[in-house]
Amino acid sequence: VIPVSECKREPGADHIDWFTIDGVHDLEVMQAIGNQFGLHPLVLEDILNTSQRPKVEEFDDYIFITIKMITFDSTDGELWIEHVSLILGDGYVLSFLENAGDVFEPVRQRIKTGKGRIRRLGADYLAYALIDTVVDNYFKTLEDLSEVIEELEEEVVGTPTKDTLRDVHNIKRQLISLRRSVWPVREATNALVRDELELIKPETRLFLRDLYDHTIHIIDTVETLREIVSGMLEVYLSSISNRLNEVMKVLTIMSSIFIPLTFIVGVYGMNFEHMPELKLEWGYPAVWVIMLAIAVGLLAAFRRRGWI
Amino acid sequence: VIPVSECKREPGADHIDWFTIDGVHDLEVMQAIGNQFGLHPLVLEDILNTSQRPKVEEFDDYIFITIKMITFDSTDGELWIEHVSLILGDGYVLSFLENAGDVFEPVRQRIKTGKGRIRRLGADYLAYALIDTVVDNYFKTLEDLSEVIEELEEEVVGTPTKDTLRDVHNIKRQLISLRRSVWPVREATNALVRDELELIKPETRLFLRDLYDHTIHIIDTVETLREIVSGMLEVYLSSISNRLNEVMKVLTIMSSIFIPLTFIVGVYGMNFEHMPELKLEWGYPAVWVIMLAIAVGLLAAFRRRGWI
Amino acid sequence: VIPVSECKREPGADHIDWFTIDGVHDLEVMQAIGNQFGLHPLVLEDILNTSQRPKVEEFDDYIFITIKMITFDSTDGELWIEHVSLILGDGYVLSFLENAGDVFEPVRQRIKTGKGRIRRLGADYLAYALIDTVVDNYFKTLEDLSEVIEELEEEVVGTPTKDTLRDVHNIKRQLISLRRSVWPVREATNALVRDELELIKPETRLFLRDLYDHTIHIIDTVETLREIVSGMLEVYLSSISNRLNEVMKVLTIMSSIFIPLTFIVGVYGMNFEHMPELKLEWGYPAVWVIMLAIAVGLLAAFRRRGWI
Amino acid sequence: VIPVSECKREPGADHIDWFTIDGVHDLEVMQAIGNQFGLHPLVLEDILNTSQRPKVEEFDDYIFITIKMITFDSTDGELWIEHVSLILGDGYVLSFLENAGDVFEPVRQRIKTGKGRIRRLGADYLAYALIDTVVDNYFKTLEDLSEVIEELEEEVVGTPTKDTLRDVHNIKRQLISLRRSVWPVREATNALVRDELELIKPETRLFLRDLYDHTIHIIDTVETLREIVSGMLEVYLSSISNRLNEVMKVLTIMSSIFIPLTFIVGVYGMNFEHMPELKLEWGYPAVWVIMLAIAVGLLAAFRRRGWI
Amino acid sequence: VIPVSECKREPGADHIDWFTIDGVHDLEVMQAIGNQFGLHPLVLEDILNTSQRPKVEEFDDYIFITIKMITFDSTDGELWIEHVSLILGDGYVLSFLENAGDVFEPVRQRIKTGKGRIRRLGADYLAYALIDTVVDNYFKTLEDLSEVIEELEEEVVGTPTKDTLRDVHNIKRQLISLRRSVWPVREATNALVRDELELIKPETRLFLRDLYDHTIHIIDTVETLREIVSGMLEVYLSSISNRLNEVMKVLTIMSSIFIPLTFIVGVYGMNFEHMPELKLEWGYPAVWVIMLAIAVGLLAAFRRRGWI
Repeated sequence: VIPVSECKREPGADHIDWFTIDGVHDLEVMQAIGNQFGLHPLVLEDILNTSQRPKVEEFDDYIFITIKMITFDSTDGELWIEHVSLILGDGYVLSFLENAGDVFEPVRQRIKTGKGRIRRLGADYLAYALIDTVVDNYFKTLEDLSEVIEELEEEVVGTPTKDTLRDVHNIKRQLISLRRSVWPVREATNALVRDELELIKPETRLFLRDLYDHTIHIIDTVETLREIVSGMLEVYLSSISNRLNEVMKVLTIMSSIFIPLTFIVGVYGMNFEHMPELKLEWGYPAVWVIMLAIAVGLLAAFRRRGWI
Repeated sequence: VIPVSECKREPGADHIDWFTIDGVHDLEVMQAIGNQFGLHPLVLEDILNTSQRPKVEEFDDYIFITIKMITFDSTDGELWIEHVSLILGDGYVLSFLENAGDVFEPVRQRIKTGKGRIRRLGADYLAYALIDTVVDNYFKTLEDLSEVIEELEEEVVGTPTKDTLRDVHNIKRQLISLRRSVWPVREATNALVRDELELIKPETRLFLRDLYDHTIHIIDTVETLREIVSGMLEVYLSSISNRLNEVMKVLTIMSSIFIPLTFIVGVYGMNFEHMPELKLEWGYPAVWVIMLAIAVGLLAAFRRRGWI
Repeated sequence: VIPVSECKREPGADHIDWFTIDGVHDLEVMQAIGNQFGLHPLVLEDILNTSQRPKVEEFDDYIFITIKMITFDSTDGELWIEHVSLILGDGYVLSFLENAGDVFEPVRQRIKTGKGRIRRLGADYLAYALIDTVVDNYFKTLEDLSEVIEELEEEVVGTPTKDTLRDVHNIKRQLISLRRSVWPVREATNALVRDELELIKPETRLFLRDLYDHTIHIIDTVETLREIVSGMLEVYLSSISNRLNEVMKVLTIMSSIFIPLTFIVGVYGMNFEHMPELKLEWGYPAVWVIMLAIAVGLLAAFRRRGWI
Repeated sequence: VIPVSECKREPGADHIDWFTIDGVHDLEVMQAIGNQFGLHPLVLEDILNTSQRPKVEEFDDYIFITIKMITFDSTDGELWIEHVSLILGDGYVLSFLENAGDVFEPVRQRIKTGKGRIRRLGADYLAYALIDTVVDNYFKTLEDLSEVIEELEEEVVGTPTKDTLRDVHNIKRQLISLRRSVWPVREATNALVRDELELIKPETRLFLRDLYDHTIHIIDTVETLREIVSGMLEVYLSSISNRLNEVMKVLTIMSSIFIPLTFIVGVYGMNFEHMPELKLEWGYPAVWVIMLAIAVGLLAAFRRRGWI
Repeated sequence: VIPVSECKREPGADHIDWFTIDGVHDLEVMQAIGNQFGLHPLVLEDILNTSQRPKVEEFDDYIFITIKMITFDSTDGELWIEHVSLILGDGYVLSFLENAGDVFEPVRQRIKTGKGRIRRLGADYLAYALIDTVVDNYFKTLEDLSEVIEELEEEVVGTPTKDTLRDVHNIKRQLISLRRSVWPVREATNALVRDELELIKPETRLFLRDLYDHTIHIIDTVETLREIVSGMLEVYLSSISNRLNEVMKVLTIMSSIFIPLTFIVGVYGMNFEHMPELKLEWGYPAVWVIMLAIAVGLLAAFRRRGWI
């Protein structure tokens, strides 16, 4: 899995060579590979620049393809984005990975078991298979994100907390970031289908068309998720306003009932010498009756308004 | 209705064959059909993949069409989306349904009664009729959604509750989902009209143009509904703020009137030995008069502000 | 005005025939007209379907045009939308109205008085004149809507009530609905100008270009009004928040002043046997002085904050 | 400046004629001019219709150009929009102004002083100079608007009042209105550059390209201002919410401290015969100590929350 | 670095001349340069006009390129925008800077050290290198802005203050301003790549294509940042509402507990002669028990609602 410089042999005629270069940070090795396969300095730069945007560029002897491998890490809710570059030449494919990893393991498996069309068809099909692996992974990532979003939706409409706000904002950022990596892939695969590239055989073009359909599907899904998350912030704000309303209703009901009553008992707590009510034997119970009547009346008024 | 493998006979010359395959989950049967009619492996994959986006693809011997049948289930407010695929070949039509069902019953009826143009015109017209059935169903779905939305609008402008928020959010999601299924149908029917496909006769093209008009009409309606629902969330927020205002007005009026009065009665509840007012015979009624004046004055001030 | 079936005579050579069919709901009559003039079944369907989207379709012998007549009913604030269809043939024009009415009265007047270009120019100019009448009516509708919107704006920025919210939402819906009817008209008139239709003479094309300009102007205005109304909801929300602020300031000022004072009078309402202040002769006035000082101090603090 | 009908002489061969018609409301005069220069009735209509959208239309003998002169009146914060039309013929230019005014004074100056290229180059350059004057004025208007917006921004982020809301809404409307007048100008100047119009010489085209650049610059600025103003409403809402928070904090702190204390003094204001605390000599000071402790504790709690 | 007028010699044949003009405000010098190199008056105007939009214009003998150098000044949070113009002629490059500065220092270094391709390739590559320096600077600016935005995000989701609002609004403005300067650069570089300009050699075109990719990357990043900042205002509003909720909960809990208790103690502070409870020996402790029960009950109710 980690062949670096010894495998730089001349591409043969009747078989396809596939070289995987893991970890593109070793400048000298990269330079050597560049010389070996006649890569343009700008191509090497793009391979090394891990923030490079996905694209397809045709050169005289080879096609340069660069995309992003994306995985959603559900433990910290962050996307893990890896820069992947491919060189499709006549009879050979070079793949450059940012880190050593097994992202192309399934393709390697299929070749080893001799199953599938990879062995039968040429280097262009191999390149397709590699890109397809990356794009298929987007579906997995989107599914993971969808699940997180669905959980958040329940929370937002139900009992949102401050953490919900943070989570919604975070998932929104992840979607913005995902979208940014996926949009140019669509353009790139479209270029592979549309441009009549010599290195790509007509049979493979059918598969690339299918790949293009997949990227459109993915973009569709990303946009849909973005719309849902966008709406969630508004719903969140409405939910909070709803709860403020409830809090204020409790305060208003409690205050509106007890403040007048406290006033009344305050009246009969005054120390005027001439307050005839204080002398009445039934004065005290009468005050209670009046206060009860007021409380019941206010409660009825609130119920009529639908506050209770 | 449930013929699966026995009906795989060679397509005849002077009649149109229509095979319906219900439930596309039986892989072996699908494989067999694929071999029988020479379908590309990618087409079989798309038929089996129920989350496939609607599209039209032309192959050498046949046209592959895949769309979504959508029904609105008003009991739980969810859309029921079914994956439908068609293969239009020379003199035959294959239709694949996700589940056994009667979505194409009307077309079958029309053929049986010998009425309509289906018997007279060819396989392409049959394919049109099947797509038309699906598209007509969208109108029904939109009508159902419109009704739900109108009810929600009344609620939102009137007396919105927490459930209203949940419902608005839900209907918004349904519209996003509906739109996602309908948009590509437009593109697909446009491809059928525009591309000079050999398998489609000029007479049928007129009908397909009409079908295209229908899909535009549907998309128009979906967008309109989306806009209305979008506005509803804002109106909801405004409604809630309005109600908070009302709650706070009640609190403010009650507090503003009774808190000063409670202060006054508190004053004459103090136990100072030298409080001349307490000795006055008309002290108690005078306090009442003052308090009434204050209450009336405050009420007048609130009325002037338009709060009562 | 209500000729239905007797006037179905063969279109003459040296004069233009104009037939108006009011009320398109009588299926048999429509079928008869369809046969008489050789209309395609799909055209008849579109004439009958009052929710049909505006469009222009060219057929071998005639052009089919369908648009919407729109009037704003200021009494209930609703748009009144009427489906209008035209068939422009060689030397004749058929106009189909949803309801009997006088929408084309001005054109009829102009013909009767022999004034204007209608008599001189051909059937295509007549068709133009009819569409122009419909489009001119949009200007009137937009003016009516503008007036309503201006009144609402005053209300929203001034003293918005719950009814204002309802009105803003309603006018928004009317604009969405209007826009939906007007947008496709632009496309349709553009098709009339751009496509080199045989039935339309070069002189008339100049008038159609002018008509197209008008539809663009109308769409511009609709979009402008939509933007203004969109902003109004935000302004409404801000206005309400402003008022809540005012309500809360009153509550806060009243409470903040009287609650501490009430506490103070409460202190001297306690019944402890050993409270030296109570015995002081100047105790009572001293408390008043202290309370006044507190009240004045708080008022000054509020004034400094700009709350009073 | 006010020549109306006497100057209608035949356009000469070796000099350029420039006629300015101020005030297009005199129908008869307009009709006469129309006849004199062979203007199409629709052109006359567009000149007279002051709400006509800016556009460029080519006719056989002349080009019809109509744009809007816009000035910002800072006293009432309203835009002053004037309808300007130009007819560029072979060797002559007609300019129509809605009102008598000096909008073209600078051009007239330049001609009189013999300075500049106007005298040297032909009628097309004169037309360019006139349009350029109008477009240059947009820059001035935008600067005026920018200043108002900057002041408003300070207010919104600082201490927004109800008037701020009104001003923001008003400036938003002005920008919508401005944009509506400026957008079509871009299209119109583009038409002048792009279409290979016979009446426009190649040298002039370079200047028109520059003019086109200016209109793009203006539209850019309008869009930028619109975005800033759009954001201001959101900031305004946030500012108000911020202030509500502050108001509520004051209320909450005052209430939370004094309401419990008032309760305590209320307890010892009760008239039970058996209240041992009342007899204690140090009862009164003890209550004060307790109350102070509570007040300090609450203040500390609020400080810890960052409310003070 | 500051050669102004003495270096105006005739461009040689076998070497490339690069003239840098710092400070474009000296009109006479500019005029002289214009004459020397045969620049069109409109080009001179665009060089002098520091608010000129970035663009590329082809003339007969030279290409005129104007872009913006942008630096983010983190001390005052403002963008520092400088107008840069280039004239690419046959064998020479003129660069005009708004202010004397060292923005092109790195290119000058590379030339002096003889390193790099600048010496080998022609004037067109030099022009590319200059533009590339400007574009590379955008990446630096975006990184600076990203950092500020990330800090703001933490604040907004955490404990936003009034200053946060001001900062968010300010960063939003910077992004609008940045975007306005960057968007046209994309267009301009695209023009350099796409148009088959004679002065640009095929080898250089590959580098320009790379430059174009960079501008797209930059625009992508700007849009992403804009989206994030846009969302921040909504999150800010939600955060503030959240805090209002908390403030109100404290007020409601304090008020709801103590207002009823104050009422109760008020009752037994009344001075009625016949209040049997006052005589009871266990009256006072009984009241305390009742009050404690009420307080505990209310606290339990609030806890059940999740307010504590």
